[in-house]
Amino acid sequence: MMSKRMGKQTIKFDSPPSIIATASTVGPKEGKGPLASYFDVVLHDPLWGEDSWEKAESKIVRKTIERVIEKAHLTPEDINYIFAGDLLNQLTASTFGIRGLNIPFFGLFGACSTMSESMSLGAMVIDGGFADYVVAEASSHFCGSEKQFRFPLELGTQRPLTASWTVTGSGAVVLAKNGTGPYITHVTTGKIVDLGIKDPNNMGAAMAPAAADTIITHFQDTGRSPEDYDLIITGDLGSIGKELTLELVRRSNYDIEKVLSDCGIEIFDPVTQDTHAGGSGCGCSAVTFAGYLYKEMQNNKWNRILFIPTGALMSPGSTQQGESIPGIAHAVVIDNKWA
Amino acid sequence: MMSKRMGKQTIKFDSPPSIIATASTVGPKEGKGPLASYFDVVLHDPLWGEDSWEKAESKIVRKTIERVIEKAHLTPEDINYIFAGDLLNQLTASTFGIRGLNIPFFGLFGACSTMSESMSLGAMVIDGGFADYVVAEASSHFCGSEKQFRFPLELGTQRPLTASWTVTGSGAVVLAKNGTGPYITHVTTGKIVDLGIKDPNNMGAAMAPAAADTIITHFQDTGRSPEDYDLIITGDLGSIGKELTLELVRRSNYDIEKVLSDCGIEIFDPVTQDTHAGGSGCGCSAVTFAGYLYKEMQNNKWNRILFIPTGALMSPGSTQQGESIPGIAHAVVIDNKWA
Repeated sequence: MMSKRMGKQTIKFDSPPSIIATASTVGPKEGKGPLASYFDVVLHDPLWGEDSWEKAESKIVRKTIERVIEKAHLTPEDINYIFAGDLLNQLTASTFGIRGLNIPFFGLFGACSTMSESMSLGAMVIDGGFADYVVAEASSHFCGSEKQFRFPLELGTQRPLTASWTVTGSGAVVLAKNGTGPYITHVTTGKIVDLGIKDPNNMGAAMAPAAADTIITHFQDTGRSPEDYDLIITGDLGSIGKELTLELVRRSNYDIEKVLSDCGIEIFDPVTQDTHAGGSGCGCSAVTFAGYLYKEMQNNKWNRILFIPTGALMSPGSTQQGESIPGIAHAVVIDNKWA
Repeated sequence: MMSKRMGKQTIKFDSPPSIIATASTVGPKEGKGPLASYFDVVLHDPLWGEDSWEKAESKIVRKTIERVIEKAHLTPEDINYIFAGDLLNQLTASTFGIRGLNIPFFGLFGACSTMSESMSLGAMVIDGGFADYVVAEASSHFCGSEKQFRFPLELGTQRPLTASWTVTGSGAVVLAKNGTGPYITHVTTGKIVDLGIKDPNNMGAAMAPAAADTIITHFQDTGRSPEDYDLIITGDLGSIGKELTLELVRRSNYDIEKVLSDCGIEIFDPVTQDTHAGGSGCGCSAVTFAGYLYKEMQNNKWNRILFIPTGALMSPGSTQQGESIPGIAHAVVIDNKWA
């Protein structure tokens, strides 16, 4: 037994779960960005008729999960588990969004790495024989995040160029025991890496060491190299974090420059949209995967990708207490084929 | 396949993981309660030499996990995954506690149900063939929780009799593929249940419907009855939630009065310790299991228990916005034997 393990942190599935449907809902700003045409629903109003940002995010979660189940031609009764998380204190975007669905629920917190945490665990419970269908989801909301992590929006506080822009949106997938792909074939689970960065307005720098650690470990565990991937895409490192990651990975003699991208870089146009370092938030990698990446894999633009959402595991309280920002990154291999 | 599933929400392991070690650390008040002798470490100072409650909780997490790995005669390199969570915003008690350990980490949020969420997922990844050894852990801290969820301690605010007292402590277990028990044989994963309770000072009432739903579903899924268990023990319903749960379960024609207890009731003496409805917090069920329940199972006081930590999935923000309190409860069967 234990043949599913490869090296220190990687597992390889015996019967890779298939991603049979995805759904995405985004806010107005994301709907004006370069990936707009890939999203299922673009909101005109970030409140979506609700009376708080938090309630709006819960509605986004609920509607996105309902949509992905429908797109998979299933009903909520068919779903064995939901794995989901968000950035709000005590995960209330997820829990209030999911409470009416009557589906067993595991709440996750991986900061902006949550989408790959949910996909990793969802794939593990399917390959482990515990489920036929699982929903994996993650969400964030710009307004709720600014309010909770930075300043009230009404202050109009100026943002440094290293800051990122939290994506408003939810991305969800249905993972199934049987299907025709794309498949989740491997998972490399990250450990916490903290090199002492303390600036919460430079989370790309804080997360880059974790991203690099997971990417290097993935290559070492699997024996694969950058050439084995059509695309290696991190979650929300942004332009600054991406450069640091390239450099850190290069020190271990892997050159990923030709294949590395970042969801936070893809989702906004920094020139016309004034988003500084790029998009961030659990929703950033979730909607980019559910929209752009999944659909272009179906178009065979890419056939094998390494998807690595990245999380900054801090809170306003930890920053106020002078703590540095621990990072984490979980990698998932998504492949159009397996054999 | 799918033979591991039983009914709607329950799974039965093919090769039940063994709980090979437990460790617990508690605060001074827990160290004066009825279960004091069962805990590994009783702190004299709830700050444990740190300069904030949050840092103290992270230290409690780290020391408890280091201890449980040592008690299992293992090293951190042997542990494939840590599953852990707490109540602090963005799980900082866990992440700052775990960051130095260099072990792949899945952060969980299930409010006070976190201990069974971590044990459930830990057992699933072992039985699924993904790990040899997993640490499952949960923690809470009275002072940090009061500050975050209720009022600054310095105010000396009076507490209603329905309120519970957040346990200061961490409980951790090492789950192993091979061992001599006690074993985790079944898991019944809860769904969110919200009957509209809005009083954050009466979380027992808010969580009772979820506890009852999971207990009833467990009986239906497995065909078992209350007589099959030596003990059915919820997490932190307290005295009021326990009565409500008994009544709700009775309506489905199961009488669990003879076997039902609650970690929140066991851990404090309400008369001498002025803890009102009982103990609560992720740490409540975690330390009660790691200390009292595990050790008395080894003494054969009980041979098969149904352990059901219960979570109130609210935040101060959701309460301020007039929301009710969704509850969740995850059940784990722990058995000295399996065949």
